[in-house]
Amino acid sequence: MLDELHEECGVIGIYNGDAVVRNITMGLYALQHRGQESAGFAISDGDKIRVRKSMGLVSTLLREHNIDEFDGFAGIGHVRYSTTGASTLANAQPILVSCKWGQIAVAHNGNITNANELRAEMEADGHIFQTTSDSEILLHEIARTQADDLGEAIKKAITKFTGSFCLVFISKDSMYVARDGFGFRPLSIARMGKAWCVASETCAFDLLGANYVRDIQPGEFLTITKNGLHSERFTQKDRLAHCIFEYIYFSRPDSKIFEQSCDKIRRKMGKQLAKECPVDADIVISVPDSATTAALGYAQASGIRFEIGLLRNHYVGRTFIDPTQNVREQKVKLKFNPIVGVLKNKRVCVVEDSIVRGTTLKILSKMLRDAGALEVHIRIASPPVAHPCFFGMDFPSQGELAASSMTPNEIAQMLGVESLGYLSVEGMKECTGEGENYCAACFDNDYPDYIGTDAQKTRCG
Amino acid sequence: MLDELHEECGVIGIYNGDAVVRNITMGLYALQHRGQESAGFAISDGDKIRVRKSMGLVSTLLREHNIDEFDGFAGIGHVRYSTTGASTLANAQPILVSCKWGQIAVAHNGNITNANELRAEMEADGHIFQTTSDSEILLHEIARTQADDLGEAIKKAITKFTGSFCLVFISKDSMYVARDGFGFRPLSIARMGKAWCVASETCAFDLLGANYVRDIQPGEFLTITKNGLHSERFTQKDRLAHCIFEYIYFSRPDSKIFEQSCDKIRRKMGKQLAKECPVDADIVISVPDSATTAALGYAQASGIRFEIGLLRNHYVGRTFIDPTQNVREQKVKLKFNPIVGVLKNKRVCVVEDSIVRGTTLKILSKMLRDAGALEVHIRIASPPVAHPCFFGMDFPSQGELAASSMTPNEIAQMLGVESLGYLSVEGMKECTGEGENYCAACFDNDYPDYIGTDAQKTRCG
Amino acid sequence: MLDELHEECGVIGIYNGDAVVRNITMGLYALQHRGQESAGFAISDGDKIRVRKSMGLVSTLLREHNIDEFDGFAGIGHVRYSTTGASTLANAQPILVSCKWGQIAVAHNGNITNANELRAEMEADGHIFQTTSDSEILLHEIARTQADDLGEAIKKAITKFTGSFCLVFISKDSMYVARDGFGFRPLSIARMGKAWCVASETCAFDLLGANYVRDIQPGEFLTITKNGLHSERFTQKDRLAHCIFEYIYFSRPDSKIFEQSCDKIRRKMGKQLAKECPVDADIVISVPDSATTAALGYAQASGIRFEIGLLRNHYVGRTFIDPTQNVREQKVKLKFNPIVGVLKNKRVCVVEDSIVRGTTLKILSKMLRDAGALEVHIRIASPPVAHPCFFGMDFPSQGELAASSMTPNEIAQMLGVESLGYLSVEGMKECTGEGENYCAACFDNDYPDYIGTDAQKTRCG
Amino acid sequence: MLDELHEECGVIGIYNGDAVVRNITMGLYALQHRGQESAGFAISDGDKIRVRKSMGLVSTLLREHNIDEFDGFAGIGHVRYSTTGASTLANAQPILVSCKWGQIAVAHNGNITNANELRAEMEADGHIFQTTSDSEILLHEIARTQADDLGEAIKKAITKFTGSFCLVFISKDSMYVARDGFGFRPLSIARMGKAWCVASETCAFDLLGANYVRDIQPGEFLTITKNGLHSERFTQKDRLAHCIFEYIYFSRPDSKIFEQSCDKIRRKMGKQLAKECPVDADIVISVPDSATTAALGYAQASGIRFEIGLLRNHYVGRTFIDPTQNVREQKVKLKFNPIVGVLKNKRVCVVEDSIVRGTTLKILSKMLRDAGALEVHIRIASPPVAHPCFFGMDFPSQGELAASSMTPNEIAQMLGVESLGYLSVEGMKECTGEGENYCAACFDNDYPDYIGTDAQKTRCG
Repeated sequence: MLDELHEECGVIGIYNGDAVVRNITMGLYALQHRGQESAGFAISDGDKIRVRKSMGLVSTLLREHNIDEFDGFAGIGHVRYSTTGASTLANAQPILVSCKWGQIAVAHNGNITNANELRAEMEADGHIFQTTSDSEILLHEIARTQADDLGEAIKKAITKFTGSFCLVFISKDSMYVARDGFGFRPLSIARMGKAWCVASETCAFDLLGANYVRDIQPGEFLTITKNGLHSERFTQKDRLAHCIFEYIYFSRPDSKIFEQSCDKIRRKMGKQLAKECPVDADIVISVPDSATTAALGYAQASGIRFEIGLLRNHYVGRTFIDPTQNVREQKVKLKFNPIVGVLKNKRVCVVEDSIVRGTTLKILSKMLRDAGALEVHIRIASPPVAHPCFFGMDFPSQGELAASSMTPNEIAQMLGVESLGYLSVEGMKECTGEGENYCAACFDNDYPDYIGTDAQKTRCG
Repeated sequence: MLDELHEECGVIGIYNGDAVVRNITMGLYALQHRGQESAGFAISDGDKIRVRKSMGLVSTLLREHNIDEFDGFAGIGHVRYSTTGASTLANAQPILVSCKWGQIAVAHNGNITNANELRAEMEADGHIFQTTSDSEILLHEIARTQADDLGEAIKKAITKFTGSFCLVFISKDSMYVARDGFGFRPLSIARMGKAWCVASETCAFDLLGANYVRDIQPGEFLTITKNGLHSERFTQKDRLAHCIFEYIYFSRPDSKIFEQSCDKIRRKMGKQLAKECPVDADIVISVPDSATTAALGYAQASGIRFEIGLLRNHYVGRTFIDPTQNVREQKVKLKFNPIVGVLKNKRVCVVEDSIVRGTTLKILSKMLRDAGALEVHIRIASPPVAHPCFFGMDFPSQGELAASSMTPNEIAQMLGVESLGYLSVEGMKECTGEGENYCAACFDNDYPDYIGTDAQKTRCG
Repeated sequence: MLDELHEECGVIGIYNGDAVVRNITMGLYALQHRGQESAGFAISDGDKIRVRKSMGLVSTLLREHNIDEFDGFAGIGHVRYSTTGASTLANAQPILVSCKWGQIAVAHNGNITNANELRAEMEADGHIFQTTSDSEILLHEIARTQADDLGEAIKKAITKFTGSFCLVFISKDSMYVARDGFGFRPLSIARMGKAWCVASETCAFDLLGANYVRDIQPGEFLTITKNGLHSERFTQKDRLAHCIFEYIYFSRPDSKIFEQSCDKIRRKMGKQLAKECPVDADIVISVPDSATTAALGYAQASGIRFEIGLLRNHYVGRTFIDPTQNVREQKVKLKFNPIVGVLKNKRVCVVEDSIVRGTTLKILSKMLRDAGALEVHIRIASPPVAHPCFFGMDFPSQGELAASSMTPNEIAQMLGVESLGYLSVEGMKECTGEGENYCAACFDNDYPDYIGTDAQKTRCG
Repeated sequence: MLDELHEECGVIGIYNGDAVVRNITMGLYALQHRGQESAGFAISDGDKIRVRKSMGLVSTLLREHNIDEFDGFAGIGHVRYSTTGASTLANAQPILVSCKWGQIAVAHNGNITNANELRAEMEADGHIFQTTSDSEILLHEIARTQADDLGEAIKKAITKFTGSFCLVFISKDSMYVARDGFGFRPLSIARMGKAWCVASETCAFDLLGANYVRDIQPGEFLTITKNGLHSERFTQKDRLAHCIFEYIYFSRPDSKIFEQSCDKIRRKMGKQLAKECPVDADIVISVPDSATTAALGYAQASGIRFEIGLLRNHYVGRTFIDPTQNVREQKVKLKFNPIVGVLKNKRVCVVEDSIVRGTTLKILSKMLRDAGALEVHIRIASPPVAHPCFFGMDFPSQGELAASSMTPNEIAQMLGVESLGYLSVEGMKECTGEGENYCAACFDNDYPDYIGTDAQKTRCG
């Protein structure tokens, strides 16, 4: 595959709504960028919960299941990111189980960092596991917790978990929502007529015509029943740790993330980048689509003209598989084509959101030069990614991260470009307003929470 | 659907073999008559177990999965019967779980009668359930049993279960086989070169070129490892209770069942039926294919000529769905067509294996008469089915059983035939040799084991 | 594949009926044994004809297309035999074209022997061909014929064709039916309420509750319109040439073929075989299912007991593909299993309908012996197949026909059996009543019509 | 569907290449924007041509067919646009036929305006038609033309056709390429090592690493054989008539179209629009992605800042079907979401490429206002579309074109916007350099060629 970051997951939940499955799947379309490996929904009609999942996109889910057959008043949905090997339908979400609390379905975005220890303990206690998902571990913990009711059991269970989690549960009659105390991943709530809607990103609300109310607070636990919504705090951490990569790459620019417009932050990062790493160039282009907002900011701050220099082909899916030579190059070419008329005889400043391995950017740089660019200057709207993430991003192993073994100069040389500039960690944090509230561990190696006994592979819940 | 008995399940296991997945799926073809709802296999390569399942026939399993991708030295396979609603991939087998004993996969034929009680107890203890299959309950019990090793845990666990079970487990390096103490369902073992093979019916051995060794004994527990096969007895019941319906309908006539040739017993039943219920008719025909062996026996004993009077269309699958009127009749017609030349102006004796609801036979009787039969005499090669089964057969509810509310005379009248004769319970048992070793509860209401607190739906393991 | 004769095709047409597509597909179920490669229907609503086809069985056609979407008052259906390579959807039928006569759809059973010459002539005249089917050639001829109307054009066109054809056409408002002057293939007509129904075999009528009226006569041309049915003769040959193989193997025994009960003729052949080739054996068994009727006749005439000695597995479809060794043997084993209890220590007489290559029978003979048969005597209810068919059967090439290069004794030796007996050509013809009305060219090399300039591959229309 | 113009078709051909099918399908990915209804290829191995097609995208074609099975040295490919009803696999391309010239396959982009007349004539002459495609008519004409060889036949045939056509043919050993005398649709040729490659747009060459040589000339006919390439002129029109809509909307901006950079022309149109229709606004946004280049030009010329104000969701395919209310609005919302942070309290100038019905723009305008835009000013980078196209674009019927019945002011009112401005016809033509060489009939009602006896539906070849 191309050397992109894998997306995380996206979750949505609707309580007391009409056309619930239809609206959940609509909402999943808006969250599709957060996960393309599998999609699914669970729906309660007040008596029984049913679940349906498909490998692939939301469009596959809709093709494989007749959503009109699923009536209900409350439901949850999930999209999961794409990985190469371990992806199976068994690991798709929502997960539906039956236990002493009755039926429970859960949709999870995040990564539980003490999942392995808890699973080992549960296995010793006689539990069985049918998936490799940390969400199943979570459900075991809830099922074996002593409590007066399901809500209390969830609350008690999640205090045992470290790492990141945005969770939406449904029982046959209620919905429960929880967000870890650091607030790693985004989760918001909205009103949609008489219904409540929670979702990973507010762009889902826009699509559904739901009105954004507020973010679920870090450490907040919501109980939504026929009697209304009840909020309480189940944990209090001494700091916040919003994932700053949500602004850089993951979230859609039209979403409000961590109570700020993602578009605005991303643009500020572009402007800050222009200030920190100026360039003597004729045009500014972006690697579409994720870096376009930052590129516009860079262009505006630098006064250099913004142009569309690379065309992205959106028809290229994951069908094309070929083990022969030059495949990586051809894949990049399938996805991007330079516009000669824009680039020819120009000194080009290319704004990209981040560098992971750098392999795509190396091919793109050559393509730009072949298209007539006189000079190629790369500007990255984030600092060098040098450390793994344990809180929900699917990075390649640390050794594969370009910045873990190379200096920016060495990377520039590897890319074959005239210059390479990164945004500074300080500059990046400044753009977010209150930088101390963010997790930037992949840049600065400062992990806010337990990261597991061994460097366990980060997995989306 | 037609008013047939639903099949149960079929299991197969191969240890230390070559082309294991290929041979398992071949064997499942031979067991396909025991279940058409889903098919699956699990395979261990010594390090890891993988599982694949499909809804539908073995041919669907082969189409949906490339079996050549699955290497391993030990594996199990399963076919599951067809029910109307609750059938989902989640309930298909084998079930693969991970627990303190590592990975375990199981294939089960039978019905655990105290599953509900055990599940309630486990839920109270904090367990979660992802299927409605009693096999999952079994795995929970194994996972929470205190023991020195997996083999001992299985042995201890299965002593807690009542009802019928033929079980084949694989761990990453071993295979375990168990059969309940009553011996309800058939299970045999064979040698295939250096490999061991266990299967529900010996016809699978014939197909694989494996040499039948013996039946797994009721109450026997086998441990098969690289060091060889170890047998022990985990329970001893005060009687045997082989399902006599295996002879009447379920098993293939070419299988050796309960150490006797199914074909021979079935033929004896036909002969005995001729003795008990003679008829003055010109020809004997069967309802193909299941009743043909009994019909041949009837013809032989009565001296009346055997004929093929009904042609069965084997191309009719489960595709044809239509909610309009006359559907049941058209379905019967799709499946069977009378041969006029055989039937015209003849007094016809029709041998059928059993009557469940009687709806198909009613339609068939009319079709025979329309085809010119002067008289229609029905002879059933088993006694009236009047009681539910809790040990692995999927009967309709008791109220729907023709014989639960009607006398044979009333049934004859309902069918619109000249006469109706059933085999007697005593006659039937006599045909098996040692009749006291068989469960005939669906005929005589004598249940050999606990049948559950409520009349729980019988479900294949 | 196994060395069976490939089926030909089956056609059906309904005019002025209700639920036309539904009834056509039902009827195709009854004709499924005549072709499993593809299935299709064409339907006219009085204004426009629509066509749908699928590769595979009728059940696939029903799964891939929602037949309820197709309203109409007249339609035709077709099932096509299975060949290994050249089978594509483009060649599936019905074929629908538009021409000066408007839309025409055709379903064809047979083989046009001068198709190549006509096609060459048409190509020279500027026609284009999109299939390799002779039915397309037929439609070209109709389209380019000078006539007053479509009916006349069809009549004129078909007089130019040699070989075998049973044709059912629909235009937007009419149906046309034609059968070649030799009457090679069967075609009958029935009444179904106010509707007319034509079909290759009468078993389709039975399923639909239609009342058989008569056979379409050799050389007859029917025009069916809103004004009723009009019959005329378009050709008169100096002899008839019904395909005798329809009785031996192709047709269902419950069908009336060439105005006689197929079952009766097939049984007579078995009796005649017993007279011509007696055997000293303990039991008579058949190779199920096609030879069972003849085996019953043989048993009756010989006084030797009929038994079910081979069980056929009807679940084995065409999914199983494997290039490794022993495949042919395993395929035979997948399909047939000997019943040891029946065969052990018996001298067995096996009745088969015909020998093509003999490869299956060779494997079966060994299987019977391995199952304990003391002696194996093969009796074939037809003469040695030594010559190709050009009138609609798909034989292997002449060189592969066992009887083209071996004497019966040599074949017996190849099969490894104690004895082998064939029915004589005279005996076979006698069983049909008026033997001179039948084509037995594959046995006696006497071709009633032109067979083409080169030994063109026979292809179903 | 949304009120977009339907794309036309895209064609590609490769002669004397390696990995021909692979490269053809790669090239089709680059041409995918020209047609999403069906995709296909035909390939010759020097002896035989084979064809494979699928409904849907190129990714579906690759999923349904194993392209590695298709060897050959010359091939053609085609993508076809999406229409609602009449789209069937039968109409997909390439079309492969057999005729007196042997096998011929064709891929066609364009619309033959005298197809109906020619078809009527051919039907009268006895031809049959299996599709409703004008490409089939073309093949009939070639097949019935008297000539010395295929090349001459094609040349003679195409002189009889009016309208637009870019044609790529292969026979078993040669390739033929033709472009109508007006040059309506783009078609270029490139070298790829020893191979020749022709394609509708040069972006396919970029992807394949082929070097653009030149455009196929209007009225040019190319014969490509093992002996090389031969060019000749088969017709000479008194004017050129390049489709100006290729610049406005159809072609990819990175393609060289009619020997000019599409991106450059599109940008000029944006600049010209700014000159003709200035606006007093705070930001310029585009309706992504097709209008972005023009919007950049507008922003540059006007000095108003360019912003990304609408986010496009590229995951939305054609799966979502719902007959309930508000569907159109929800579809627009699924596809586009406004970015509040960009729009709030801004006077927004929205640049769109064209207005067809105006329904999408009406919904978008309301969405922008709901997102906080103070004023919405629409600027269209082309003149009002008021007349149908007969040369290869799939417009709605004239009555549905907003500009056919409303003045710009009325349209602005319908859209509910502060102002609406169109580019003038003169301004548009000026941007192309030599405006007289272009067809702008949909704007100015000046049709350069025969448009058919009746207003026949324009259809892609």
